[in-house]
Amino acid sequence: MKKLINDPSEYVDEMLDGMIAAYPDDVRRLPDTNVLVRRDAPVDGTVGVVSGGGSGHEPTHAGYLGPGMLDGAAAGEVFTSPTADELSEMIRACDAGEGVLCVVKNYEGDVMNFDTAAEMAEMEDVSDIAQVVVNDDVAVEDSTYTSGRRGVCGTIFVHKVAGAMADRGGDLSEVQRVAEKAVDNVATMGMALTSCVTPEKGEPTFDLGEDEMEIGIGIHGEPGVKREDIASADEITDQLTGGVLSDLDPEGEVATIVNGMGGTPLSELFIVNRRFQAKLDENGLETWNTWVGEYMTSLDMCGVSVTVLDLDDELKELLEHEADTPAFSV
Amino acid sequence: MKKLINDPSEYVDEMLDGMIAAYPDDVRRLPDTNVLVRRDAPVDGTVGVVSGGGSGHEPTHAGYLGPGMLDGAAAGEVFTSPTADELSEMIRACDAGEGVLCVVKNYEGDVMNFDTAAEMAEMEDVSDIAQVVVNDDVAVEDSTYTSGRRGVCGTIFVHKVAGAMADRGGDLSEVQRVAEKAVDNVATMGMALTSCVTPEKGEPTFDLGEDEMEIGIGIHGEPGVKREDIASADEITDQLTGGVLSDLDPEGEVATIVNGMGGTPLSELFIVNRRFQAKLDENGLETWNTWVGEYMTSLDMCGVSVTVLDLDDELKELLEHEADTPAFSV
Repeated sequence: MKKLINDPSEYVDEMLDGMIAAYPDDVRRLPDTNVLVRRDAPVDGTVGVVSGGGSGHEPTHAGYLGPGMLDGAAAGEVFTSPTADELSEMIRACDAGEGVLCVVKNYEGDVMNFDTAAEMAEMEDVSDIAQVVVNDDVAVEDSTYTSGRRGVCGTIFVHKVAGAMADRGGDLSEVQRVAEKAVDNVATMGMALTSCVTPEKGEPTFDLGEDEMEIGIGIHGEPGVKREDIASADEITDQLTGGVLSDLDPEGEVATIVNGMGGTPLSELFIVNRRFQAKLDENGLETWNTWVGEYMTSLDMCGVSVTVLDLDDELKELLEHEADTPAFSV
Repeated sequence: MKKLINDPSEYVDEMLDGMIAAYPDDVRRLPDTNVLVRRDAPVDGTVGVVSGGGSGHEPTHAGYLGPGMLDGAAAGEVFTSPTADELSEMIRACDAGEGVLCVVKNYEGDVMNFDTAAEMAEMEDVSDIAQVVVNDDVAVEDSTYTSGRRGVCGTIFVHKVAGAMADRGGDLSEVQRVAEKAVDNVATMGMALTSCVTPEKGEPTFDLGEDEMEIGIGIHGEPGVKREDIASADEITDQLTGGVLSDLDPEGEVATIVNGMGGTPLSELFIVNRRFQAKLDENGLETWNTWVGEYMTSLDMCGVSVTVLDLDDELKELLEHEADTPAFSV
């Protein structure tokens, strides 16, 4: 295993300390938890927007803490849901009396623990709690850890849109409404050239031959749609773009993300973006804005996903709203 | 070779097109070259600040194009200097009549071609051209491609400081002076867990055993100081930090970068940052600000470098000055 780590069992704890050391004026850690929150949470007069999930997807979610995006981010162990206790503590810490929206990626453990956490927080006098479940991965219906589709990189747009509405003073029903609109209008598909290696196991999560790739991979290395011989960047991009567009069927303007899986150099993401944007253009779509980088990773996996958000005027306004976070700024 | 590429000979060309497709309102490509410039270059009333070098270090340099940093960025083929012709064309395109500062990483090819380019541009009526050579890598004196030290991730601070002074309306001598001050006060040291693989060759640039790491590596996979058994993140960080501090001997406040080499997950960089900041603190230093991410990479290499800039009030002001670029914003 070739990783910059110490004791694998300290991986998440040390990573979170390293984030605090990087952004001491912006984020803080709730004592004795793996929950990070905005330093100024709860923010008076605004709905709290929180998320969380297993670690290994950095900068998701704590990289999106800040004005205009998330108030709280709970980190589980690698590829493991945060506990209901910690999620509940996060919800309480981010409630300024206006209620809290939980943005949940669709994995069984996350959904179950967020449900339990909401019940616990409600018993402790949190005013109001709502939830949206993100399920943007068009590759597979049901999978290793999900009933229904997986939640992947489209979650970033849901954070952005919900956080913007909260920052504008929208009430909980408004924040929930726009988050659901983003969920309904976003689709993602990914692929992997290599498996990820978890710190605890120290070996590839799955075997992939030297000349093989996996199309439709999940962000935990769950099996995708098919395993094929490695193709060119253009052929791969065409497959992913085709999958997303045939599912979402967008019209007019879109916002897009070309997302690296953790081990892919930025140069390769730009090569994918070149073809991706050309294909969108061929399909009569206009890219209003695009982001290229690492947003929702799978440890050290080499691979890429493409995300399309079908826009209307409200979603555009919310995407344009100022955000100031370690991993995403507008 | 597991890469998201098409024809390896099109790697740089397609990557640059992908960057333009990502930032069409911000950057443009000079026709028939591998030079990207700010869309609004040359910027009236300001000194042009330009850089360039071999590709494979993305987001260096084109990711730093924008207000408050670079006006022009020339990309050579992978790990190969841009031609003097293209560098000269970049200098001319970024000259608004106030002169141009060239920020050059210390590699023989880059220094030679920038020298020739400056002579060519001067013959074509560019008002005034100055140059700073960045040589922040403390690992080795002289190396495969250099006389003297290599220029590595500290270059980002030089871009930032020079770009800020230009944006504030400083004249060429002022812009050059602060760039040289940054060069004199910055030091970096890096290491690799794995070799990079160039697209054309398709094989590791050097062999590193499954249990080995290379300390003091360069950004092209040039040999470092020593090859050792893989150590813990803390032990590695201590070695790198010790190398930087014993060379630079900073006092008081510093700015720092924990830089991934292209294939290293962000989570591991945070684990390094945790120890790095603790060691700086132990040494009586106060980190005024730090950046953690991929800034100066080596294709898909897994590894990390740490950079320290010894600050004074002027450097702090220039770092704080607004910058708006794809890879670095303040």
